[in-house]
Amino acid sequence: MEVTIDKELEARIRDSFARQSMMGSIGAELVSLDVGKVSIAAPVSKGFRQQQGFAHGGLIFTIGDSAAGYAALSVLPAGVEVMTVELKINLLAPAAGRLVAEGRVLKPGKRLVVVAADVWAEDGKGARKQVAALQGTMIPVNP
Amino acid sequence: MEVTIDKELEARIRDSFARQSMMGSIGAELVSLDVGKVSIAAPVSKGFRQQQGFAHGGLIFTIGDSAAGYAALSVLPAGVEVMTVELKINLLAPAAGRLVAEGRVLKPGKRLVVVAADVWAEDGKGARKQVAALQGTMIPVNP
Amino acid sequence: MEVTIDKELEARIRDSFARQSMMGSIGAELVSLDVGKVSIAAPVSKGFRQQQGFAHGGLIFTIGDSAAGYAALSVLPAGVEVMTVELKINLLAPAAGRLVAEGRVLKPGKRLVVVAADVWAEDGKGARKQVAALQGTMIPVNP
Amino acid sequence: MEVTIDKELEARIRDSFARQSMMGSIGAELVSLDVGKVSIAAPVSKGFRQQQGFAHGGLIFTIGDSAAGYAALSVLPAGVEVMTVELKINLLAPAAGRLVAEGRVLKPGKRLVVVAADVWAEDGKGARKQVAALQGTMIPVNP
Repeated sequence: MEVTIDKELEARIRDSFARQSMMGSIGAELVSLDVGKVSIAAPVSKGFRQQQGFAHGGLIFTIGDSAAGYAALSVLPAGVEVMTVELKINLLAPAAGRLVAEGRVLKPGKRLVVVAADVWAEDGKGARKQVAALQGTMIPVNP
Repeated sequence: MEVTIDKELEARIRDSFARQSMMGSIGAELVSLDVGKVSIAAPVSKGFRQQQGFAHGGLIFTIGDSAAGYAALSVLPAGVEVMTVELKINLLAPAAGRLVAEGRVLKPGKRLVVVAADVWAEDGKGARKQVAALQGTMIPVNP
Repeated sequence: MEVTIDKELEARIRDSFARQSMMGSIGAELVSLDVGKVSIAAPVSKGFRQQQGFAHGGLIFTIGDSAAGYAALSVLPAGVEVMTVELKINLLAPAAGRLVAEGRVLKPGKRLVVVAADVWAEDGKGARKQVAALQGTMIPVNP
Repeated sequence: MEVTIDKELEARIRDSFARQSMMGSIGAELVSLDVGKVSIAAPVSKGFRQQQGFAHGGLIFTIGDSAAGYAALSVLPAGVEVMTVELKINLLAPAAGRLVAEGRVLKPGKRLVVVAADVWAEDGKGARKQVAALQGTMIPVNP
């Protein structure tokens, strides 16, 4: 795992991630942690599919949301948490295999952090395609 | 459960819902089926929460997405399925208890169906508050 | 014009509207002012069209944005102004004639106000159809 | 002006742009034309401002929408036009001076084209900052 942020920030993100029970339920893991940029991966497990057997949009949204949220957290001061104000997803292609969401900060701010996330599907043979693009707004909150 | 649509359409929606494994995993159930209007409910189970113990945004999105998608399906001819083109969610309040998503069609169409969904949280004592508003676009596809 | 808000709030909205030069340029006028609900109308003038002669999406967005913004202002304390954080528009049909945007508050708040707006096109013979649905977020700012 | 597309496509885009009367009213001009990437610029003229004297969100949306739309048109076959299905804008900072919108295609397709646009404000001294990010969906239509 690639980590370019300091230990304290890494610990905060890992701690928050561990408390997000939904991350555990979908089998998600942190993949990389940079300032303003966080990646999360999760398999398209049998239990999280739509009617045609591809990843449910809700699963794709979930890891995009968390990746974008932690990207926002990485540019905020210690002691705050982050909540999603709003988030918009465009689904680009049916997704199977393994999902990787790359969240990034478009605009940091004290009151709000504007974020984006791209979600990719990897087929296990090294091929990957983008399956979703998200854009939204995160807000710092006191826990 | 309140159903005002014909048996054939009801069967198609129930069949599709049963094939969406994510609906089963989150414990979701169909609550009402009308032409252009479908409701789905799900508990905020322990496994689908964010870091503060409230419903993960991904869970709220998931039932809003499916409710809106079946609302779209209910105004389309037999033989097609529906996929989400894009969907935007505004989260209005932290959610606990039981979620109810009410999907509805804003504008039917052959090529695209514009949809919305409101998601409510019920606390078990009869009180409910709106926790999210979604707006988006569904597309009919041949299975 | 229908006004159900107090004189002081009405004066603040009228003053802000008059300072929005874009409202004048597109020929917009305030149509109704209620707490949490503001309507604005504007003609689809020759200078604000797309390539097929219908209203440009930017014109429809503009009056939807302002109607939603003043709806937000109407639930905020005196002394603040409102800025658009983000806004999403679904265009439902080509628009000609006269546009009427009905902005409303979905969720008031001190830090953010979640809003929506419906935009209608009227053909001059009494017929009207919805041409757009908007959903977004406004933020109070000190001028 | 930078143009990397063929003459026929350039002519189609220029013709459509000329027919969008809103482009003329706001003083917009095409800045660059590439396959899947189109830039449009416009001044923040006196007539298109919000209550604080900055560019109205509707102006920023307008050039973002057109830039994204022509980016979509540039990847579609001859003989079609493009309409906006939906578009979401996050406003990142107040905008003055000159606006430049860079539209791009995220995902081409026969039925739909997913697009994005970044809008920048230039202050006349060479400094520029991003003032908006847009993400949305375009649809090909027969004229």
